[in-house]
Amino acid sequence: MSTASLPSTRILNPKLERKIMSAETAAGLIQSGDQIGMSGFTGSGYPKAVPIELAHRIADAHFRGEKFQVSVFTGASTGPELDGALAMAGGIHLRLPYQSDPETRKRINAGEMDYMDIHLSHVAQFVEYGFLGKMDVALVEVAAILEDGRVVPSSSIGNNKTWVDCADRIILEVNSWQPLALEGMHDIYYGLEPPPNRVPIPLTKPGQRIGTPYLKVPPEKIVGIVLTDSPDRNSPFKTPDEASKRIAGHILEFLGWEVKKGRMPANLLPLQSGVGNIANAVLFGLEEGPFEGLTSYTEVIQDGMIGLLNSGKLTCASATAFSLSPEVLTAVNANMASYRDRIVLRPQEISNNPGIIRRIGVISMNGMIEADIYGNVNSTHVMGSRIQNGIGGSGDFARNGYLSIFMAPSQAQKGTISTIVPMVSHVDHTEHDVQVLVTEQGLADLRGLSPRQRAKLIIEKCAGPEYKPLLADYLARSEQLSYGKHTPHLLTESLSWHNRYLRSGNMRPREES
Amino acid sequence: MSTASLPSTRILNPKLERKIMSAETAAGLIQSGDQIGMSGFTGSGYPKAVPIELAHRIADAHFRGEKFQVSVFTGASTGPELDGALAMAGGIHLRLPYQSDPETRKRINAGEMDYMDIHLSHVAQFVEYGFLGKMDVALVEVAAILEDGRVVPSSSIGNNKTWVDCADRIILEVNSWQPLALEGMHDIYYGLEPPPNRVPIPLTKPGQRIGTPYLKVPPEKIVGIVLTDSPDRNSPFKTPDEASKRIAGHILEFLGWEVKKGRMPANLLPLQSGVGNIANAVLFGLEEGPFEGLTSYTEVIQDGMIGLLNSGKLTCASATAFSLSPEVLTAVNANMASYRDRIVLRPQEISNNPGIIRRIGVISMNGMIEADIYGNVNSTHVMGSRIQNGIGGSGDFARNGYLSIFMAPSQAQKGTISTIVPMVSHVDHTEHDVQVLVTEQGLADLRGLSPRQRAKLIIEKCAGPEYKPLLADYLARSEQLSYGKHTPHLLTESLSWHNRYLRSGNMRPREES
Repeated sequence: MSTASLPSTRILNPKLERKIMSAETAAGLIQSGDQIGMSGFTGSGYPKAVPIELAHRIADAHFRGEKFQVSVFTGASTGPELDGALAMAGGIHLRLPYQSDPETRKRINAGEMDYMDIHLSHVAQFVEYGFLGKMDVALVEVAAILEDGRVVPSSSIGNNKTWVDCADRIILEVNSWQPLALEGMHDIYYGLEPPPNRVPIPLTKPGQRIGTPYLKVPPEKIVGIVLTDSPDRNSPFKTPDEASKRIAGHILEFLGWEVKKGRMPANLLPLQSGVGNIANAVLFGLEEGPFEGLTSYTEVIQDGMIGLLNSGKLTCASATAFSLSPEVLTAVNANMASYRDRIVLRPQEISNNPGIIRRIGVISMNGMIEADIYGNVNSTHVMGSRIQNGIGGSGDFARNGYLSIFMAPSQAQKGTISTIVPMVSHVDHTEHDVQVLVTEQGLADLRGLSPRQRAKLIIEKCAGPEYKPLLADYLARSEQLSYGKHTPHLLTESLSWHNRYLRSGNMRPREES
Repeated sequence: MSTASLPSTRILNPKLERKIMSAETAAGLIQSGDQIGMSGFTGSGYPKAVPIELAHRIADAHFRGEKFQVSVFTGASTGPELDGALAMAGGIHLRLPYQSDPETRKRINAGEMDYMDIHLSHVAQFVEYGFLGKMDVALVEVAAILEDGRVVPSSSIGNNKTWVDCADRIILEVNSWQPLALEGMHDIYYGLEPPPNRVPIPLTKPGQRIGTPYLKVPPEKIVGIVLTDSPDRNSPFKTPDEASKRIAGHILEFLGWEVKKGRMPANLLPLQSGVGNIANAVLFGLEEGPFEGLTSYTEVIQDGMIGLLNSGKLTCASATAFSLSPEVLTAVNANMASYRDRIVLRPQEISNNPGIIRRIGVISMNGMIEADIYGNVNSTHVMGSRIQNGIGGSGDFARNGYLSIFMAPSQAQKGTISTIVPMVSHVDHTEHDVQVLVTEQGLADLRGLSPRQRAKLIIEKCAGPEYKPLLADYLARSEQLSYGKHTPHLLTESLSWHNRYLRSGNMRPREES
């Protein structure tokens, strides 16, 4: 992808135009040991040319018996040209804060790559505070560079402001595939000083703009500009299955009930929904539901949210990135200008900011791997040790939201895994942060309940039919025999379901013969 | 404690003076099934007369074979006249959000009382949002009632504003033991509307006042006023032991290092420290240390903080309550006016507000029961099931602070319990929220580390010498045999240390003969 010789209409500043180089040359500006802040949040707005060339360089070095590894910080997950390529080359020393690439996941779980799973709202400030070491390079995809040097961001913001502010040297990828109509959609807030000089972030409504649409990139730090013309890559959309639709149905019914009881305005409160098919099913459910004048304050704009914007049910959406299926993306890119008043893309330190989430009262809806009978949630680790993706922003939203909802089908892997277990094998969200649990079986409203009351309700409402009596049995025996009876547990068997699965591939107990 | 006939100089409003009644009469205004918001945060500012009379009423009803129970919400823990008396009478249906009373704890862990452990910052808003049901009664200790009906709060604020705002009827205890010089020390913020109408809380410095020194109590809701003259009751102070001093030493050394590396200003950032002797040891260490111009933004004013104020090292302290030993309390009460410019008492929805804690960059220091090799922290449950006190505000501070430090001696119960374990038996603070772990053995700075790196460092720096090789052995075998190697675990033995303790009273493995 060497396009350095082509003239570019995306770089209007003549001085910066002179910094155009090939991706290979730009990758040559990166040294082993560098800590690199890359753009990218889900399959949107990540650099698409330089990481591949960097992976080549790293592979070459390894062929020659030389060490070459870099640390890669991003917004969240990225595409195969970034995570996949660098992981395959064995080029990543430390990766953070979130990933969903199969090759990356494989290496992390083989113990071959260090990965640090961080609340998405923590990343920018930890870097600015100097907690994560010096940022050597910022490698950021953008949509265009204006005459005066201001930069039009790409289809995600993530931590780009922080990478550009903190890195010693900057490489930009200017991707002409990104629609120029993105200009004006972003809102980069430049008022967040580190303590003790922080002042209140003035945001009070999801659609409010508090910053500037442009990324400020100091020209003297730019060491290279690479031209690309490459699409974002997000997963295709799956039509919601029956379980997802039932989960969505339970949530909509519950929200209706909350409105009826006066605990929520008729147009609800700003919606956050995690990435994925269940989240999309909820959004599609809202499209057919009774609520009007909705808003969202979330991480990513998914297919379902575009549907809600198109139908007029959603008046505005705030996020840090697009995360659209190829079909919907094509339609949105063709009409990007029509969404500019209704979509705001922000840095993730704002989209995921605990203070703002609490202030505007976000309704937080996130998926989970498993929950235990007391409502502790595992979002990240299969069988307690194998990381799936990462905690992402779920903690930012769940603890600070007006309401915190976690959802998943009651069973996985053809019923060999129960989502509801006696004790989760890893905790990402403690009982204190989980107010509502939903599976296709039903919804457990845990507000105001003690642990034993929670356990009874979760088993009754959420567990799959096969596992329900087993959980009830565990709880009953725990209530008799537990050391303490506030949160009754039998520690000799609290993780036995996971052990059984690891031994036999099935959480169900086998009949003894 | 029937003092209704005495004239009172603490009630300057004649209309309200007519509502004075005996504690017994006031207790008669409470019905079985009532949900009562009571004042009290640690042993400060809790009602001291009506709860005892209520306990008598409840006991009488039980003697007659009648049901009588109430739900009791407070700021945090209280004194024996409240929690102890009501628990002994079997009078509590549901208790929240924090307790430390031996009788209460006993009943909760016997499965006889429902207790809900909540982040202290969540309580007020959950009640205001209607998530925890209707508040029937507010029972609040105050220092005085002014001519115009405004109320001078007592030695703690906690959730009093919320109780008074939300309850149908209000009973005030006017405690003449509380110094009148408390007037002007409080700062009650009345700007916190529920979403979608919340605006930024304007607080940017620990000592800043953003509200009014008086509690607004609608006179028409006051159904009774009871006069008391009873002391607050907090635990006596223990001189820091050797382990606490060493923990304090490690933390001070670390903070000095952070200043030297430019990651913190020379006067540090606002300090939060949990309740207890280790926290006090840190504060005493600061008194002898090199830092000047300190501030604190915390839950309680402890002995050590008074020492720092007296020495001039601490310029101001923000909290929601006093929590002083009897000796120090006597001295402070005698000189309360001299502290009025330097101490601010706030509602706990402000003292513990995540957005403010993050904004002003609090250094969070909290105790723990145990931590695992990956840095997950258990603050509440002994052996996973038996609740000690509660999570309190530790989650509010740990996740949102500039830095989150957890501390405890490396061993408990004469070495039969290791504070560092393979896997915690209950999680209150996930690995994502724990940046620094400290025991008397040393300090582990976990920033920027992957789980396996964290494990090596925690074992090396924090574990007790006897348990260190056992933990290293667990980690080494887990790194070989674990299902996933991101967070290696052997689930068949991850909780075996706790099981061994429950079986034998000792986490140490016995020599097989």
